[in-house]
Amino acid sequence: MSGLSEFDLIECYFRPLITRDDVILGVGDDAAILAVPNDTQLVVSMDALVADVHFAADDEPYGIGHKALAVSLSDMAAMGADPAWVTLALVIPEVDESWLAAFSEGLLALARRFEVQLVGGDTARGPLCVALQLHGLVPCGQAIRRSSAASGDLVCVTGTLGDAGLALRLRQQYGRGHQDPAREYLDRRLDRPDPRVREGVTLRGLASAAIDISDGLSADLGHILKASGVGAELTVDAVPVSDAFLRCTEGMDTDDALALALSAGDDYELCFTLPESRLGDLEEAARGWDVPWHVIGRITEVEGLRFIRGEDGNPFTVERAGYEHFR
Amino acid sequence: MSGLSEFDLIECYFRPLITRDDVILGVGDDAAILAVPNDTQLVVSMDALVADVHFAADDEPYGIGHKALAVSLSDMAAMGADPAWVTLALVIPEVDESWLAAFSEGLLALARRFEVQLVGGDTARGPLCVALQLHGLVPCGQAIRRSSAASGDLVCVTGTLGDAGLALRLRQQYGRGHQDPAREYLDRRLDRPDPRVREGVTLRGLASAAIDISDGLSADLGHILKASGVGAELTVDAVPVSDAFLRCTEGMDTDDALALALSAGDDYELCFTLPESRLGDLEEAARGWDVPWHVIGRITEVEGLRFIRGEDGNPFTVERAGYEHFR
Repeated sequence: MSGLSEFDLIECYFRPLITRDDVILGVGDDAAILAVPNDTQLVVSMDALVADVHFAADDEPYGIGHKALAVSLSDMAAMGADPAWVTLALVIPEVDESWLAAFSEGLLALARRFEVQLVGGDTARGPLCVALQLHGLVPCGQAIRRSSAASGDLVCVTGTLGDAGLALRLRQQYGRGHQDPAREYLDRRLDRPDPRVREGVTLRGLASAAIDISDGLSADLGHILKASGVGAELTVDAVPVSDAFLRCTEGMDTDDALALALSAGDDYELCFTLPESRLGDLEEAARGWDVPWHVIGRITEVEGLRFIRGEDGNPFTVERAGYEHFR
Repeated sequence: MSGLSEFDLIECYFRPLITRDDVILGVGDDAAILAVPNDTQLVVSMDALVADVHFAADDEPYGIGHKALAVSLSDMAAMGADPAWVTLALVIPEVDESWLAAFSEGLLALARRFEVQLVGGDTARGPLCVALQLHGLVPCGQAIRRSSAASGDLVCVTGTLGDAGLALRLRQQYGRGHQDPAREYLDRRLDRPDPRVREGVTLRGLASAAIDISDGLSADLGHILKASGVGAELTVDAVPVSDAFLRCTEGMDTDDALALALSAGDDYELCFTLPESRLGDLEEAARGWDVPWHVIGRITEVEGLRFIRGEDGNPFTVERAGYEHFR
C-alpha cells in the first residue's frame, strides 16, 4: 500500500491534459466552477462501470479508462451534444500506481481527443468501480431525444453491429490468446469503442430521434419506439456487419449470427430515425463522418418491433431481447 | 432476485418528487437536458460512498440515502452554491425492494427539502457503492473558493465539532444498542448530517474562503491554508462542542476529547474565513441560520496550523491529522 493520499492521487494521475476556457475552477476545491454559454443547454449523463459486470477486473487498465469515458461520450453523441467536462468517482481496492497510471492515460487520451476536461472527482477504497459524469452542451432546444420518432421515418445505424458481442462470445468460448487479425479487430471493437461524437453533433436538427447501442439494437431501438409511441419494421439483411464479423461467424448458424448482430450490446454505434425527406441532407452531412451509415428499416404507426428478411419479406424472430442488468 | 430491469428500477424508486422549471428533460433518455440561467455559473461535485468505508453495509438504507446526498450538498454549501440537480450511480449486490424503497426515500426527502431534482443515473449489480453528482448554481464570479483566505481574517465554524467522530468511536467501542439521549443525538449527527446549504449561500460575498468539514477541522482548514498560502492560529478552547459531546466525554481525557473535536471527520459543518471588518455583516446575515457560529482563530501570514489553549496561550498538539482514505 502506498502512502498516497486521495488528494495526491487526483493531482498526480488525473491532472488535466487540456484546459478549456469555460472551466473557471477545476480539480482541487469542494467543487468545480463551470461557465455554460448563453443560448446553450447543459446535457448530463452518469454511468457506472463495475468490475466483472461491465469489464473483467484483470482487463488492461488503459482499456478500462478508455471504455469508462467512451460509454458516456456515446450518451452525449446520442443527444447530439458537444462533450465538455467530466467528473470521476473511482473506487479501487488498493493504490497500484502502474494500474492508475495506465487507467488515467486511457481515460485522458480519449478526453483529449474530444476536448473534454476532467474537472473533479472522488476516490475511495473498495471493490473496483468507476462512475463517470459527463457534461455536454447543445444549442437551446436542439438536443436529440428518444421521443420524437414519427411513423414513416427511416431507421438508420452508424458503423457495423454485433462486433463487440461476437468478441465477447469468442473470448468466453476460446479465451483471449489468439493471433487472428479478424478477432483482433473484434476485440478492439469491444475493448476500445469509438464513440460517435462527431456523427451525433451532425445529426442535430436532422435526426428525429437517436439512441446509442449499448444494450443491443433490439433493446435500444425499443426505447425509441416506446418513448415515441410508434413501432418499426427492420430488414435484417440490411443490418450492417463487418468483414471480421462475417469471417468469425463462418462456422456459425446464420440466424444465430444475425441474432447476435441484432441483440448483442456494447457496440456504441448510433441508431437514429430520420424523415425520408431529409435523406439528401444526411448524405451531405455524413461526408465528414468517420464511419458509414445504413438505412435498416422504417418507423410504423403499429407499435412493436418486427424483423423481416430482405428478399422474401418473411418474418424473422430474435430470441434474445438484449442485455440488461438485474435480469 | 426480482424481475425488475434497471430501467424499471430508476422509474420505480427514483421518480422525482419535485419538478424544477429548469429541467428540460429528466430521467429516461440517454442524458438529461438542463437550463442554466444566464449570469450564473455551474458548480459540480462528485462523491463516492462505499460500503464499509463510508458507512456500514448493514446501516439502515434510509440513512445511507440521506447521507449520500448530504455529503454532496455540503460541498455545494462550501462553495456558496444553490443546489439544483443530482444524478446517481447506484451499485447494489441484489434487487432488494424494501432496501431500495428506504434508500430512495432518504435521498429524495433531503432532495425535496433543498429543492433538488434527480435528473438521471445508472444502476448496476456489484458491491454496494453510491456515487452522486450534484449540480449547483451561483451568480457569476460569486462562488466561494478555498484559495482567498488572507492574513488577519477570522476563522469561523458553524455548529459544533466532534459529534460524528465521537458517535463513531462510541459505536465501535460499545456497539449500537443504547438508550442514552446524548448518544442518540451524536448518532443522529453521524447518520443524518444536516448540510449547511442555507448558511453557505448567505456566506457568498462575505466569506473570503470556505470548506466543509468532512475529514476533520485540522485537515480541512489545512486545505484552505495550503490553497491560500497562509497559516492559522486556532484557540482550542473556542472550538464549539455540543452538550451531548461534553456529557459523553466526561470520563475521557480532556486533551483526547479536544483532539477528537479538532480532527474527527463527518461533521459536515462549514469552516470559513472572514475579514474582521465584515463581522457585523455576518452577525446580521446569520440571524436566519439554523445553527450558531463561532470565531475560533485567525489567519496568519506564517504558514502552518497552530493550536493554542485559551487562557495561557500555550501550544496544544493534535496527534491525528484527520481521516484520509488510502493512508
